[in-house]
Amino acid sequence: MQLGMVGLGRMGANIVRRLMRDGHECVVYDVSADSVAELASEGAIGANSPEDFVAKLSGPRAVWVMIPASLTGKIVDQFAELLEPGDTIIDGGNSNYRDDVRRARKLAEQGINYVDIGTSGGVFGLERGYCLMVGGPDEAVERLDPILKTIAPGVGEIERTPGREGELAPEEQGYLHCGPSGAGHFVKMVHNGIEYGIMAAFAEGLNILHNADAGIREAAHSAEIAPLEEPEYYQFDIDTAKVSELWRRGSVISSWLLDLTAAALQENPKLDGLAGRVSDSGEGRWTVKAAVDVGVPAPVLAASLFERFASRDEDRFANQVLSAMRKQFGGHSELPAGHSLEAGAAKAD
Amino acid sequence: MQLGMVGLGRMGANIVRRLMRDGHECVVYDVSADSVAELASEGAIGANSPEDFVAKLSGPRAVWVMIPASLTGKIVDQFAELLEPGDTIIDGGNSNYRDDVRRARKLAEQGINYVDIGTSGGVFGLERGYCLMVGGPDEAVERLDPILKTIAPGVGEIERTPGREGELAPEEQGYLHCGPSGAGHFVKMVHNGIEYGIMAAFAEGLNILHNADAGIREAAHSAEIAPLEEPEYYQFDIDTAKVSELWRRGSVISSWLLDLTAAALQENPKLDGLAGRVSDSGEGRWTVKAAVDVGVPAPVLAASLFERFASRDEDRFANQVLSAMRKQFGGHSELPAGHSLEAGAAKAD
Amino acid sequence: MQLGMVGLGRMGANIVRRLMRDGHECVVYDVSADSVAELASEGAIGANSPEDFVAKLSGPRAVWVMIPASLTGKIVDQFAELLEPGDTIIDGGNSNYRDDVRRARKLAEQGINYVDIGTSGGVFGLERGYCLMVGGPDEAVERLDPILKTIAPGVGEIERTPGREGELAPEEQGYLHCGPSGAGHFVKMVHNGIEYGIMAAFAEGLNILHNADAGIREAAHSAEIAPLEEPEYYQFDIDTAKVSELWRRGSVISSWLLDLTAAALQENPKLDGLAGRVSDSGEGRWTVKAAVDVGVPAPVLAASLFERFASRDEDRFANQVLSAMRKQFGGHSELPAGHSLEAGAAKAD
Amino acid sequence: MQLGMVGLGRMGANIVRRLMRDGHECVVYDVSADSVAELASEGAIGANSPEDFVAKLSGPRAVWVMIPASLTGKIVDQFAELLEPGDTIIDGGNSNYRDDVRRARKLAEQGINYVDIGTSGGVFGLERGYCLMVGGPDEAVERLDPILKTIAPGVGEIERTPGREGELAPEEQGYLHCGPSGAGHFVKMVHNGIEYGIMAAFAEGLNILHNADAGIREAAHSAEIAPLEEPEYYQFDIDTAKVSELWRRGSVISSWLLDLTAAALQENPKLDGLAGRVSDSGEGRWTVKAAVDVGVPAPVLAASLFERFASRDEDRFANQVLSAMRKQFGGHSELPAGHSLEAGAAKAD
Repeated sequence: MQLGMVGLGRMGANIVRRLMRDGHECVVYDVSADSVAELASEGAIGANSPEDFVAKLSGPRAVWVMIPASLTGKIVDQFAELLEPGDTIIDGGNSNYRDDVRRARKLAEQGINYVDIGTSGGVFGLERGYCLMVGGPDEAVERLDPILKTIAPGVGEIERTPGREGELAPEEQGYLHCGPSGAGHFVKMVHNGIEYGIMAAFAEGLNILHNADAGIREAAHSAEIAPLEEPEYYQFDIDTAKVSELWRRGSVISSWLLDLTAAALQENPKLDGLAGRVSDSGEGRWTVKAAVDVGVPAPVLAASLFERFASRDEDRFANQVLSAMRKQFGGHSELPAGHSLEAGAAKAD
Repeated sequence: MQLGMVGLGRMGANIVRRLMRDGHECVVYDVSADSVAELASEGAIGANSPEDFVAKLSGPRAVWVMIPASLTGKIVDQFAELLEPGDTIIDGGNSNYRDDVRRARKLAEQGINYVDIGTSGGVFGLERGYCLMVGGPDEAVERLDPILKTIAPGVGEIERTPGREGELAPEEQGYLHCGPSGAGHFVKMVHNGIEYGIMAAFAEGLNILHNADAGIREAAHSAEIAPLEEPEYYQFDIDTAKVSELWRRGSVISSWLLDLTAAALQENPKLDGLAGRVSDSGEGRWTVKAAVDVGVPAPVLAASLFERFASRDEDRFANQVLSAMRKQFGGHSELPAGHSLEAGAAKAD
Repeated sequence: MQLGMVGLGRMGANIVRRLMRDGHECVVYDVSADSVAELASEGAIGANSPEDFVAKLSGPRAVWVMIPASLTGKIVDQFAELLEPGDTIIDGGNSNYRDDVRRARKLAEQGINYVDIGTSGGVFGLERGYCLMVGGPDEAVERLDPILKTIAPGVGEIERTPGREGELAPEEQGYLHCGPSGAGHFVKMVHNGIEYGIMAAFAEGLNILHNADAGIREAAHSAEIAPLEEPEYYQFDIDTAKVSELWRRGSVISSWLLDLTAAALQENPKLDGLAGRVSDSGEGRWTVKAAVDVGVPAPVLAASLFERFASRDEDRFANQVLSAMRKQFGGHSELPAGHSLEAGAAKAD
Repeated sequence: MQLGMVGLGRMGANIVRRLMRDGHECVVYDVSADSVAELASEGAIGANSPEDFVAKLSGPRAVWVMIPASLTGKIVDQFAELLEPGDTIIDGGNSNYRDDVRRARKLAEQGINYVDIGTSGGVFGLERGYCLMVGGPDEAVERLDPILKTIAPGVGEIERTPGREGELAPEEQGYLHCGPSGAGHFVKMVHNGIEYGIMAAFAEGLNILHNADAGIREAAHSAEIAPLEEPEYYQFDIDTAKVSELWRRGSVISSWLLDLTAAALQENPKLDGLAGRVSDSGEGRWTVKAAVDVGVPAPVLAASLFERFASRDEDRFANQVLSAMRKQFGGHSELPAGHSLEAGAAKAD
């Protein structure tokens, strides 16, 4: 089958490579002519302008746009003008599903199908395939089936879920038509929300292990901070790299994210050079807002998001307010007070 | 009535002053002879040794120990040896109620009454009185009633709770016998747990107000961090000092902690000079552990405690783990990447 | 000064009464003729139609709309059509500040001023006054000053914040022009977010006190649930009504919400008849979404919101998933297993 | 090598089977003679009393105790009396690591080695092996190496972590000597704490997907609860069973817990018959308490624990307090109010 790819960053390029390996024909375009040339040298049909790109595709066209979410709207609009009724435009990036809902409605007026695809797979996708969460009109999605099947990881060596029988369902091969336009990115959004939660669970747990030697280090604690009450129970010098590796085998928390954690700690056991300022992309935020909208509790997902904000000092004014309140009420200064009776008495709230 | 006070830090000294103003007799002792001399010059009976202190009290003695929690055990033991059956020793500091339970049991064997009193009132206690949460044997606590009544704030100008009639109950005067030994500090512990939660609610809310101008400042946001989606809704330059003052009148969140917040922001509107490293004393921790022990949810109280930990960078290793995981999976570096298509594509998880 | 009031529910009617008491002239309208008649009998000028209402007001008109947020848009539009350039329309309800931003922009095109006012004061507002958070164009808000001053609580008996001197600022009298259109409801939104957090802090703390007798009740615990480890520390039978009353005097958590808690527990100490299904209005949700938008952590405010969702069983599917996972992995059934060695062994994860 | 096993519940019996398959000799004992007979029929050496059991083991003995944590102390004491200096007693259950620290100290006085082993593997351990987290004295743990290697899963088909070379480390085979006595159960405790967090992340995320149709169901919402603001964005009818299956392939959240979730939803897509009352064993609680002790934030782990408490209605009194406060302040009843402008106006807090 033929696919047009707009945006040849790492993910776009690797999807093209994965498709060509499996015999699909790819027409490619990027603002960077070098990127186009590189893919063309690997067998893709390069295009030197949007018009050229569209002309090189045979109808009904399938155009996959793989660019940063912030630019997607503009690019989709630009290419939609060049497309014809019956063509399909795919947003494979990280768009907000709300944008999908709106875009799909608008493009439907022109007779153009809009398909949103959330992809997970990171830097490993080329080899392992990408998990694809798809939203869009039935017919358009069905037509893309050969493409999706190739991009997806396939069944792999993963054990079949008990109770599943007969022919493999698409979801067992790593792709799924989740619902109408927006459903793909909605599922991907929640996927990332969960990812944040899992990452935070590992990070918090490893931090506790990392501090299991608090009873040895205790002298450093100041008078203003509650001292460790039973230092005899925190005398462990745990090797978090080894523990992460250990849990990969036979433990119920074994997972891809744990594999990555073990790899990271093997490479850099003390995580030197990392400041711990953790970025977030939009999905974690949208997930929390969706939970709030539909009125379901998501304390773990929200906490994991807020931890990232706090890691970037976005809690600064809040913490200053706390210090200021403490000072007003108890006369507590931020710096360790002294060691007199006074110090303790002053703590009386 | 007569009371002996051990520990003449700010709180101990002010309790003595409040008692003397109301005609009670106070025998005082501290390791600092100067502190003793100062109170003696205001009318207290000074003692120059524990033995002297005990000798100057008439039986059944009432000895109030007002020193840092970390020293209380030692001092209580020291004075208990000098006391006689029927005497009462009071721990007015911030002890863990579990220590009370143990101490009370041990002292009961010697016939000595142990009374634990949680006090709230901060630097304002001398004028306003201290809220007293009392645990201990009935008879011993009853005998202390005149003392407690004086130290407590009294009914003040606070409106009577609808449905309460007749003679004022002790709790309406600001002191309460909450239960057996440990109950006083248990209630004080939960009080402080609640305090942490309330403080955090204000701090978080004010931080949102403080950032209500995010739409104006937006340019500063980097590519790695989700951009503000609808900057037109965050164009407010809110004066948090004025808002805190405003809420003091007629709003349902009016409270003493808000009064203090307004005072702090009036004094220092930008909270200059505060690093936002927020200390915690033991009670917040003990409250969360008590919630865990009895199996009741306390997400707000726990979150407020954890925010303080995070304010002191105790989340550092956890955040480094998160950054390391992101790097493994998506090739994300911690620093803002660039602006190419690549940058966005790389974010695809 | 003259004010027109649309919507004579409890709050609208009480604001009118408070204004009339202070000598202002009020023109009133409601779809319920009875409500109009009642206020008219108290001295207001009743109107029997929107047109009549507008005609009875002298320009530049000030029209206060005090109706449910869901209807506000429609009513504002309806009256705006009858108003003239220079007139002002006030939304005193609980609108989302985002609606204000949009409405203000639209009405500005017609030359009509839009002022959004968040009010706090509940059922006590008639007597105590309402705390007013105001957003809108400078000139329009200034013109309303006499009205706002009357509706607000005034300085009352509340102690002046240290450092404030000279003439009383509006915020010291309980009203504040917070910024352009939307700023009033934005501040009110955060106010309510904080309110949720404070309420939750009290509720969680009182729940811990309520369960401080867990060591006495312990027998009831089943094999599937972690038993109380040190029952000797949970032997307290705490009277939460008395404790709430106690904390009202001299304690740092004294507050209006505590006053209300004490009143509620005095009236109904066991809270009989309350199912504990806690509603939420929009502000708590909007606050969390605003925090997410601007990227500041709000774990306490979010947790308090999520607790309300969970109180209404919106966590049901999530909990079923947890039970289902536990069953898959450990063979745990939801009901207490038995007491054999097996039971324990089965718990090995 | 020879091992004695006390406690032949599912896990104890399966560990014995796994050992025998690999050629180790097992002496077995249980209070149930039937359990002993069953294992004996499979090749184990059965013992009919503790004394008989000890006599059948050759020194230095290795005795693995695999019974519920609540009984472990008693049984360890009982067998320790029969053992000789140089023997080793292993607690393979779910003990609190604090008990290990104390027991190890006590047994060391008798010259007996105490080794604590946390095991993960659930009902799958017999076939897949158990992940073993080991604490104890170096020499004693080294002597157990052949046993541990057999019980552990081995390297399996799991890809080697980049950077690891040469001979396989024990942690790559699924067992690790984590540190002195207590370290094994400490690491297992944190493992389970993380497990709770991951489970909650999945459960919350799936709950959001489950409610992605809120815009379709919206009519059911009452006046007291904030209505869904933009129903057009919640029109998805997501099949959570299919999505769970999908994510197993290629997605970054692929994990054993997801496999189990997919299996559970495949078996019972609507989770019929599950009440969603989620039990918790001690480790989740101990993890949160450890985090509090060492002063590191663990909001995700704590939230996941609290969700379980709330699933069992342990938040009941807290929620009643919230309802009571709302009633006092705003006159809100718990039941949907309904009617008229009044309803909305009453919400004005």
